[in-house]
Amino acid sequence: MRAAVLHAPGDVRVEEIADPKITAPTDAVIRLSAACVCGSDLWPYRGIEPVEGPMPMGHEYVGIVEEVGSEVTNVKPGQFVVGSFVASCGTCEICRSGYPSSCVNRVFMAQVGTQSERALIPHADGTLVPLPGTPDADLVPDLLAASDVLGTGWFGAVAAEAGPGKTVAVVGDGAVGLLAVLAAKQLGAERIIAMSRHEPRQKLAREFGATDIVTERGDDGVAKIEELTGGLGAHSVVEAVGTQESMEQAIRSTRPGGHVGFVGVNHDVTLSGEELFFSQVHLIGGPAPVRRFLPELIDLIWQRRINPGKVFDLTVPLGEAAQAYRAMDERRAIKAMLTV
Amino acid sequence: MRAAVLHAPGDVRVEEIADPKITAPTDAVIRLSAACVCGSDLWPYRGIEPVEGPMPMGHEYVGIVEEVGSEVTNVKPGQFVVGSFVASCGTCEICRSGYPSSCVNRVFMAQVGTQSERALIPHADGTLVPLPGTPDADLVPDLLAASDVLGTGWFGAVAAEAGPGKTVAVVGDGAVGLLAVLAAKQLGAERIIAMSRHEPRQKLAREFGATDIVTERGDDGVAKIEELTGGLGAHSVVEAVGTQESMEQAIRSTRPGGHVGFVGVNHDVTLSGEELFFSQVHLIGGPAPVRRFLPELIDLIWQRRINPGKVFDLTVPLGEAAQAYRAMDERRAIKAMLTV
Repeated sequence: MRAAVLHAPGDVRVEEIADPKITAPTDAVIRLSAACVCGSDLWPYRGIEPVEGPMPMGHEYVGIVEEVGSEVTNVKPGQFVVGSFVASCGTCEICRSGYPSSCVNRVFMAQVGTQSERALIPHADGTLVPLPGTPDADLVPDLLAASDVLGTGWFGAVAAEAGPGKTVAVVGDGAVGLLAVLAAKQLGAERIIAMSRHEPRQKLAREFGATDIVTERGDDGVAKIEELTGGLGAHSVVEAVGTQESMEQAIRSTRPGGHVGFVGVNHDVTLSGEELFFSQVHLIGGPAPVRRFLPELIDLIWQRRINPGKVFDLTVPLGEAAQAYRAMDERRAIKAMLTV
Repeated sequence: MRAAVLHAPGDVRVEEIADPKITAPTDAVIRLSAACVCGSDLWPYRGIEPVEGPMPMGHEYVGIVEEVGSEVTNVKPGQFVVGSFVASCGTCEICRSGYPSSCVNRVFMAQVGTQSERALIPHADGTLVPLPGTPDADLVPDLLAASDVLGTGWFGAVAAEAGPGKTVAVVGDGAVGLLAVLAAKQLGAERIIAMSRHEPRQKLAREFGATDIVTERGDDGVAKIEELTGGLGAHSVVEAVGTQESMEQAIRSTRPGGHVGFVGVNHDVTLSGEELFFSQVHLIGGPAPVRRFLPELIDLIWQRRINPGKVFDLTVPLGEAAQAYRAMDERRAIKAMLTV
C-alpha cells in the first residue's frame, strides 16, 4: 500500500510499504476514508524531534473496518469507525477512570502511521467507535477531526473547566486551539478569548464562538487578558502550543483558583515551582483522552451541530503529502487533509 | 509588648516592640492565647530566604479580640477567634470563589508577626472566625493548629481529591504532612500512605489514620508507592515539603488522571513541562485557602472529633522562642507551641 514516510527532516515521501497484518487477536485493519497532517507531525518534520530512519507518519484516522482479530467483538468489517490517536484497551483501571490516552497498554498511533491507505488498529474494541451508519461524504472531515484535533481541543476546554459563567482564553490558533474555542462554546462558556494574530484564523475562531480576539503575545498578551477580566485573569485557559512562552502565557493569564488545560505537546519547557505555587492555578494536560469524548463528539457531528472539519483549509491527494507538510510548516494552511 | 524577632539567620530574640494599633477601620487587635513556630519560619531562620533587617516572626494565631476598627461587624471584643495565616477581605471575586489566600487585598500575616503578646489582624471581618464560646484550655492547641498547619494539610488533601475509594500518599512528615493524613482520613480515604523515616512521626501518622508507612525516598519511594498500588501510583498525593526532590516524588507517585495537592512552599524547584505533560496528573497548590475550611475545622475541634494539636510536641514560654526554633531546626520537635 502507499504511505507517507519521513526519511529526514523536511523529507516526506509517499511510497509503497507492506500492507498491515493482524498479529494480535485484538487488532483490526481499517481502510482509510481520509487522512491528515497534524501540528505535532511538524516536530519531527522540522527536526525538533529526532528522526531515526524512515518513519511512517500520521496518527489521525477514520475509515471502514476491513478485518478484525478473533477476539474483537465491538466492531466488524464494513463498519465506518473513528478512533483516537492513542489506541487503548478500554478495560484497565486508567482507561476506566477516563484517561485512555494513559492506558497501561496504550499504543501511540504515531508509532504505527495512518497517512496511508490502510492502518493497523491495536486494541480495536477499546479504541474504535462505530458510527450509526455510513456518513455522507461532507461529514468525513468533521469525523476525521474528532480523531485528534477536535478531541484534543475538547479535552483542553474540559481540563480548563470551561462552562457557563466562565471566561475562557485560548493560547494558540492552530487547529487544536481553534477547536478548543468550539469546545468552550459547546460547553457553555460566557466569554471566549482567542489569542491569534493571523486574520484567517481569527475569522474561524469567531465562527467557532470566540467573543474576543487578543493579538498580543507573552507579557503583553497576559496584560491584555488581565485588562479584559478586571485584573484577575481568565477562569479557564487552554494552552495549545507547547512552548516555554505559551505555557507561561497560559499560566499567567489564569486567575488564582482558575484552571489551565495544556494540550500542546511540551518541548523544552521548564516551569518554576515557586511560580506555580503562588499562581495557585489548577494544571492538567497531556495527550488528550480523546476516546472518552468520541461518542459525544460523533453524535454532535452526526446531528450536524458542529463543523470541526472547517479547520481543513487544504486538501490534496495522499500522493502529494509533501506539499501538505510544506503548507503547514509555512503556516499557509491551518490543517491539511489527504484524500486516499 | 514582647515579640519574637529574627535578626539574622539563627538569631531569634524575644524583645519589646511597639503594641499594634488599629490604623484601618477594618483592622482588629487580638491578644494571643498561644503562638507557635511553623516549618516555613525555618526558611529565613536557616537563611534560605533572605533576612533583611530585624523581622517580627510568626503567622499562626488564636486569641481574644481586644479592639476592632469602626467598620468591623463580624467579631467583637471579648470573642475568642481563629484566623488564617493570610488575612483576606472575604468580598473580592477570588475570596468568593474559595481562594482567600490569593485575595486581591491579602496580607500575609508573616509580614505582621504573631509570635507576640498581641497581633494586628487586617480585614478582620473576612479573616477571623469567632468561636461559639470560650474554649477549654486543652482545645487551644487544636485551634491554633487550624490557623495554618491543619488548614494547610486539609487543603492539600482536598486539592489531591482525597476521598472514599482513594489511595492517598503524603510526601513529608512535618506537621502539615501529618495533618494531611488526618484530613485524608476525615475525607474518607480508603488507604493512606505516609512517607516518613522518623519513628515518632510514623507513630503519629498511624494515630491520625495512616494505613501504610513508606520509609524510602526519591525514586525508591516512587517505586514503593507503585508496588503498593498495582503499578499505577496513588490516586491522590499531598506534597508537604517544597523541595525539588519532594515535588518530583509527589508527581511521580501519582497515577495518570490522579491529583497532586502541593502545599510545601516551593524553593528552587523547576518542573519539566514534558514530564508534567506525559504524567497527566492534576496539579494545584499554593498558600492554603485556610479561611475556606475554618468553620468546618473549628466545628470538628469544638466537637472533639479531631485532635490536630497533637503535632505540638514541645511547649515553651514565648520568652524562650529561640529554643523552640532550635528544636524544630534540628528536627527534635515536630512543632513547637509558645505560651504567651
